[in-house]
Amino acid sequence: MKKFMFLLAGLLILPTLALAEDAPVSEMSYILNTFSFLVMGILVMWMAAGFGMLESGLVRSKNVATICLKNISLFGIAGILFYLIGYNLMYAGVDGGFIGSLGVWGADDAAAAAGDYSAGYSASSDWFFQMVFCGAACSVVSGCVAERVKLWSFLAFCVVLCGVIYPIQGSWGWGGGWLAEMGFSDYAGSTIVHSVGGWAALTGAIILGARKGKYSKSGQVNPLPGSNIPLATLGTFILWMGWYGFNGGSVLALGDAASVIEMSNVMVNTNMAACGGMIAAMIMVQVLYKKVDVTMALNGALAGLVSITAGPATPSLGAATLIGAVGGVLAVLAVPFFDKLKIDDVVGALSVHLVCGIWGTMAVPFTDGEASFVTQFVGVIATAVFVVIATSIVWLALKYTIGIRVSEEDEMLGCDSSEIGMEAYPDFQTVSIGGSSGISGYYSSPDSRP
Amino acid sequence: MKKFMFLLAGLLILPTLALAEDAPVSEMSYILNTFSFLVMGILVMWMAAGFGMLESGLVRSKNVATICLKNISLFGIAGILFYLIGYNLMYAGVDGGFIGSLGVWGADDAAAAAGDYSAGYSASSDWFFQMVFCGAACSVVSGCVAERVKLWSFLAFCVVLCGVIYPIQGSWGWGGGWLAEMGFSDYAGSTIVHSVGGWAALTGAIILGARKGKYSKSGQVNPLPGSNIPLATLGTFILWMGWYGFNGGSVLALGDAASVIEMSNVMVNTNMAACGGMIAAMIMVQVLYKKVDVTMALNGALAGLVSITAGPATPSLGAATLIGAVGGVLAVLAVPFFDKLKIDDVVGALSVHLVCGIWGTMAVPFTDGEASFVTQFVGVIATAVFVVIATSIVWLALKYTIGIRVSEEDEMLGCDSSEIGMEAYPDFQTVSIGGSSGISGYYSSPDSRP
Amino acid sequence: MKKFMFLLAGLLILPTLALAEDAPVSEMSYILNTFSFLVMGILVMWMAAGFGMLESGLVRSKNVATICLKNISLFGIAGILFYLIGYNLMYAGVDGGFIGSLGVWGADDAAAAAGDYSAGYSASSDWFFQMVFCGAACSVVSGCVAERVKLWSFLAFCVVLCGVIYPIQGSWGWGGGWLAEMGFSDYAGSTIVHSVGGWAALTGAIILGARKGKYSKSGQVNPLPGSNIPLATLGTFILWMGWYGFNGGSVLALGDAASVIEMSNVMVNTNMAACGGMIAAMIMVQVLYKKVDVTMALNGALAGLVSITAGPATPSLGAATLIGAVGGVLAVLAVPFFDKLKIDDVVGALSVHLVCGIWGTMAVPFTDGEASFVTQFVGVIATAVFVVIATSIVWLALKYTIGIRVSEEDEMLGCDSSEIGMEAYPDFQTVSIGGSSGISGYYSSPDSRP
Repeated sequence: MKKFMFLLAGLLILPTLALAEDAPVSEMSYILNTFSFLVMGILVMWMAAGFGMLESGLVRSKNVATICLKNISLFGIAGILFYLIGYNLMYAGVDGGFIGSLGVWGADDAAAAAGDYSAGYSASSDWFFQMVFCGAACSVVSGCVAERVKLWSFLAFCVVLCGVIYPIQGSWGWGGGWLAEMGFSDYAGSTIVHSVGGWAALTGAIILGARKGKYSKSGQVNPLPGSNIPLATLGTFILWMGWYGFNGGSVLALGDAASVIEMSNVMVNTNMAACGGMIAAMIMVQVLYKKVDVTMALNGALAGLVSITAGPATPSLGAATLIGAVGGVLAVLAVPFFDKLKIDDVVGALSVHLVCGIWGTMAVPFTDGEASFVTQFVGVIATAVFVVIATSIVWLALKYTIGIRVSEEDEMLGCDSSEIGMEAYPDFQTVSIGGSSGISGYYSSPDSRP
Repeated sequence: MKKFMFLLAGLLILPTLALAEDAPVSEMSYILNTFSFLVMGILVMWMAAGFGMLESGLVRSKNVATICLKNISLFGIAGILFYLIGYNLMYAGVDGGFIGSLGVWGADDAAAAAGDYSAGYSASSDWFFQMVFCGAACSVVSGCVAERVKLWSFLAFCVVLCGVIYPIQGSWGWGGGWLAEMGFSDYAGSTIVHSVGGWAALTGAIILGARKGKYSKSGQVNPLPGSNIPLATLGTFILWMGWYGFNGGSVLALGDAASVIEMSNVMVNTNMAACGGMIAAMIMVQVLYKKVDVTMALNGALAGLVSITAGPATPSLGAATLIGAVGGVLAVLAVPFFDKLKIDDVVGALSVHLVCGIWGTMAVPFTDGEASFVTQFVGVIATAVFVVIATSIVWLALKYTIGIRVSEEDEMLGCDSSEIGMEAYPDFQTVSIGGSSGISGYYSSPDSRP
Repeated sequence: MKKFMFLLAGLLILPTLALAEDAPVSEMSYILNTFSFLVMGILVMWMAAGFGMLESGLVRSKNVATICLKNISLFGIAGILFYLIGYNLMYAGVDGGFIGSLGVWGADDAAAAAGDYSAGYSASSDWFFQMVFCGAACSVVSGCVAERVKLWSFLAFCVVLCGVIYPIQGSWGWGGGWLAEMGFSDYAGSTIVHSVGGWAALTGAIILGARKGKYSKSGQVNPLPGSNIPLATLGTFILWMGWYGFNGGSVLALGDAASVIEMSNVMVNTNMAACGGMIAAMIMVQVLYKKVDVTMALNGALAGLVSITAGPATPSLGAATLIGAVGGVLAVLAVPFFDKLKIDDVVGALSVHLVCGIWGTMAVPFTDGEASFVTQFVGVIATAVFVVIATSIVWLALKYTIGIRVSEEDEMLGCDSSEIGMEAYPDFQTVSIGGSSGISGYYSSPDSRP
C-alpha cells in the first residue's frame, strides 16, 4: 500500500520534471546558475556551524572547547585539501572510471568572459558548492568520535578524508564515474556524503573504542548526557536551514523555469522529510520510553533530512514525509542497536547519517522510475567497502604512529584540558566528579581570576 | 504634527510604487519570483530558530529543554498541518468568503512546465513561503505559555492553530476573503500572523493561570529572570534577520523593477522600525527604571518589527522609525500592564506581538492613502473575536480532557524533569531552590556521570 | 619567491576580470544588482550577531549581558545615524574631496520606476548595503573596550563614529574622494571598515586603561578567559558566513556575467583566506605554546578574513590562502605585543582588525597590478591619522564629561550589575571571587526565585 502511494506520488510529480535543459545558455541563465551555487553554498557552509553547535551541545562540558575547535578547523582543512587535491580527483577526467586526476584546482572562466556561456556557471561557484559538501562529510565524523580522539590525529584523518577518500568515491557517482554510468542515483548525497561520513565514523568509533564509563562491565549502558540542549537545538535548526541549500542547490541550475520548479519541490520535500522524521521519532520515543527525549527529536529531524537527500526531487509531499518518518523511526531504533554492539557514538551520528543514508539511497526507486534497487544497492555496498577499508587503514596508521586516543587520565579530565588547555565554560561550577569541568587547578590561584 | 510627517512621507514615497505589474510574465520573471519565495522563505523558517533561542534564553534553566523541543516540533507540526489542511483552507476558493476548502494541498506547475508562466511562480515556492508564516504564529504562543503548559497539550493546540484557526482567519485577508474585499491592508501580517499568535497566547495564559510564585498574595510581582541572555540576544538577531524575509518576501514578486524597488524599501523600513523600537525602548526603560534592561531592548526591537509589518512598503525611513519607536514604547508600557492584570507572559509575547500587532495594523493609513482606519479596525476586531473564541474553546477542551498544566510539584521541579526527563544544562550547578536545575537525583548516582 | 607566486597568480586571474561593464542596464540586470545588495546586505547584518556572540563568549560571565546589549544597540544606532547624517556625508557630492554633504538621506528611484535603469540598482538597496558596513566598524570597537566602558558612553561614541568619523574617512575611498582619485584600492574595507574600527578601539583601550587585574605590578599578564567558548565559535562561524556577503556583495553588481564571475572568485578567495589564517594560527600556537588555543584559531580565521578584504578579487586561491595565513600569523604575534604595551584588548580586536586590516591593504599590490604600494600606504596612514585624532577627541570629551569608565567596585562586580542590573546567567553558580557572577544579593531573597 505504502509502495503504491509512493508510485502514485511519483507519477503525479514526474511530468513537471521532464523538461529539456539543453537550450543554449543565456547570460542571465549563467548568472542565475552561478548565483544559486553561491547562495546555496553559503547555506551548506552554514551547516558546519550547525554540526559544531549540535556537537557542542551533545558532549560533556569538559570536551566542548575541543569539539568547537574540531568543527571549525575541519572546515578549514576541507577548503585547503579540496583545492590542492580533492576537486580534481573527484571531477577531472573521471570518464566512467574509478578516480579523477591529480592536480591543484584552478578556475577557468575565459570562455564565459568572452561571451560563451555554455559552461553554464562560473568554475569557482561550482568549486565552492562542491567543497562545502566535502566539509559536511568530515563533520559527521567529528561528533561520533568525540570526547576521546586526539585533536591533531583527528585533523590528520580529515586531511585524508577530504583530500583522497571522499573525492575518490565521489568521483564514482558525481564525477561521472562507473556508478554514474550504471545509473546510480544520489541527488545530494545520502550515500556520497552522509553514509561516507557515517562509515568513516564507524571505523573510527570501533578502532578508538568506547568512552570510559559508557558501558559498564555488567552490560549496562550509562547515559552521558550532553551539556547544552539549546545549543544542540540551535545546531539542528541551522542544519535544517542549511539543508535547503544542500538539497535545493543540488539542482545545479536556476537559469530556467524547470530548474526553479524542481528546486521548489526539492526544498518543500526536504522540509517535509524533516517534519516527518522529527514527529515520528517523538511519537516513537514517547511510546517506547514514556517521555520524549529532546535529543531524539533533534536526531529524528536530521534522520528525515538525511533520508530524503538521495531523492528529494521526485516524491510528493506525502511521500517525502513518509520517507523522513521511516528515517526518524530507524534512527530511534538504531541508537540502542549500536549501544548493544558497544559502539560508542557520542551524538548519534551513525544512527542518523549512516543508517538513514543507506535507507534514503535505497528509497529512491520508490518515487523515481529511473532508479533501480539493484543499482542503488551496488552503490551503497561499493561505497561501504571502499570507505570502510580506506578509513580503517588511516585510523590504524594513525593509531600506531602518533596515536589516536587521549590517555585515560586526560579523558577523565576532559579533552579541553589535555588537548586545548582551555575550558569551554571556565566561569561556571560544574557537577562532574572532581569539581569544575575537569581542569581544577589549571589556573594557579583564584587571584588570577578577578 | 506627527501625522503630518507621516502623510508627507507617504506622498514622497508613493509614486515609486504606483507601477503596473500586469505585463506578461517572462521565464526570467517566473524564476526570480520563485527564487525570492524560496530565499525569503528560508529566512522566515530561520525565525523559528530565533523564537527558539529567544525563549530558551528567557525561561529558567529548569524549563529550557522543554521550550527547545516545543519550538522545533511546532515547526514540524506547521509543515504537516499546512500541507494536510491549512493551505487549501486559507487559499483555495475563498472568493470573498470566510473560509477556503478542505483538502490536501498538491503542487500543480504543469502550465509553467509547458511554457505558460502566467502563474508567476511555482506552486511549491508559494506553499513554502506561506507555511513558514503559519509556523511563526505558533512560535508566538509557545513563549507566552512557557514553564507550565504540558508538552503534548501545547502541541495538540498547535495542530488546531496551524490546521484550522490560522488558515481560516488568514483566508479573510490573504486568501481573497471578505476582509480583502473590504480593503483591509496587512502587508506581512501584523494582524494575520502576530496578533493571531498574540490572541492565542492571551487566552492560553489566562486559562492556564500564572506560574507559581510570579504574583505573590501581597500583590507583588516577582521577577523570574531568564537563564541565558546571550541566547535571547542571538534569538533577537535571528528574528531581525529573518524579518527581512518576512516583510521583504511579502512583496510576492521579484521579476520586475517595481517589485525589487518595493522590496528594497520594505527591507530598509523593516530595519529602521527595529532600530526605532529598540532605541525608544532603551531610553524609556532608562528613564523609568534608571537602568537599561537588556530584555526590554530586545523586545523593543521586536516590537518595532511587529509594528512595521502591516505596512512596510509605504513609509519613509523616518516614518518607519517612528512607527517602530511607538511600538517600542508600547511594549515597555504593556509589560507592567499585563502584570497588573496578573496575566503571566513569560517572554513578553503579548506586549510585543499582540499590542504592537494591533498598533502596526492601525498605523497603516498614516502612510498608505489606500488604507482606511475603519477597515483596519474592523480587521483587528474581527480577528480578535474569532481567534479569542476559537482558541478559548481549544484550550478549554484540552484542559478538561488531557489537561494543559503540569502538576504543582512538576512545575517546581521544572518541565524538563516532568515532560522531557532530561536537563538542558546537566553539567552546571544551578542556584534554584532544591539544588541543581530541579532534577536532583535524576541520575541515580554520580558514578554514572564520569 | 612568494612575491613571484603572487604575481603569477595575478596574471592568471586578471584577464577574466577585464570585462567591460558599460552596456546599457536592462531591467533584469537592475533587478539582480539590487537583489544582490539586499541578500548580501542581510549577510553583513548577520555579522553584527556574529560579533555579538564572539564577544559574549570572550568576556567573563559578569559582563555578558552588557556586551549583548552593546552589540545589538550599536546596530540600531548605525541604522539611525547612517540615515540621518552618515550616508550623505559619505556619498553625496564628495567629488574628489574630503567630505560629502550634510543632510538626511532619502531614496529616489523615480527614474527606474519610469523605465530608466541606468542607476543600476535601487537607492534603498545601496543604502542598506552601506549601512550594515558602518555597523561592522562599531562592532570592532565594542569587543576591545569591553568589561570596563560605560554603556551609554560607548553608545554615544558609536553615534559619532557612525554619523561622522566613519562616513568622512569612507568618503575618501568609497565616496569618490581624494583617495579614490589617487587610486587607493580597498575592495571591501580592510582599511575603511576594519582598521577604522581598530584605530577607534586602540584609542579607546589606551584612554580607558586596562582592566583591573589584567596586568599585575610584577609585569605578569593574567589571562582572564572568556566564559563561553561555543558562543565564541558560533560567532566566528557567523562572521565567516557573513563575510561572503561582505566581500562578495562588494562587487556591487550581479547583472552581468563578469560580475558574477568576480563574485564567485571573491567568495572563494574569502573562504581560502579564512582557512589559511586559521590553520596558520593553529600551527603557530601549537609550536609556540605546545597547545592549541581555540580562541587563537578563531581569531586566526578572522585575521585571514580581514586580510583578504582589501583585495579579494585578484588573488588566485593559493595567493588568497597565503595572504590569510600571513594574517593569522600576525594576529598570533600581535596579541603578546599589545599585552607588552599593556594595551588591554579583551577579544583580540586590535590584532585581528587593525593589524590585519593594515596588512591586507598593503598586500593588494601583490596580486593587483593596478594598485601601488605607495598609494596604499598613503591611504593607511591618512586613515590612521584622521581616525586616531578624531576618536581620541571623542573619547576624551566623553571622559571629561559623562565619564567613560565604570567605578572600580562596579568593574569588580561586573558591568551587568552596574550598567544593566541583570545577570546574563542568573541560574548558574559561578566561580568568580565573591560567589555568583558578581551580583550576589541582587535578588533580595531566594524566595523570589522559585
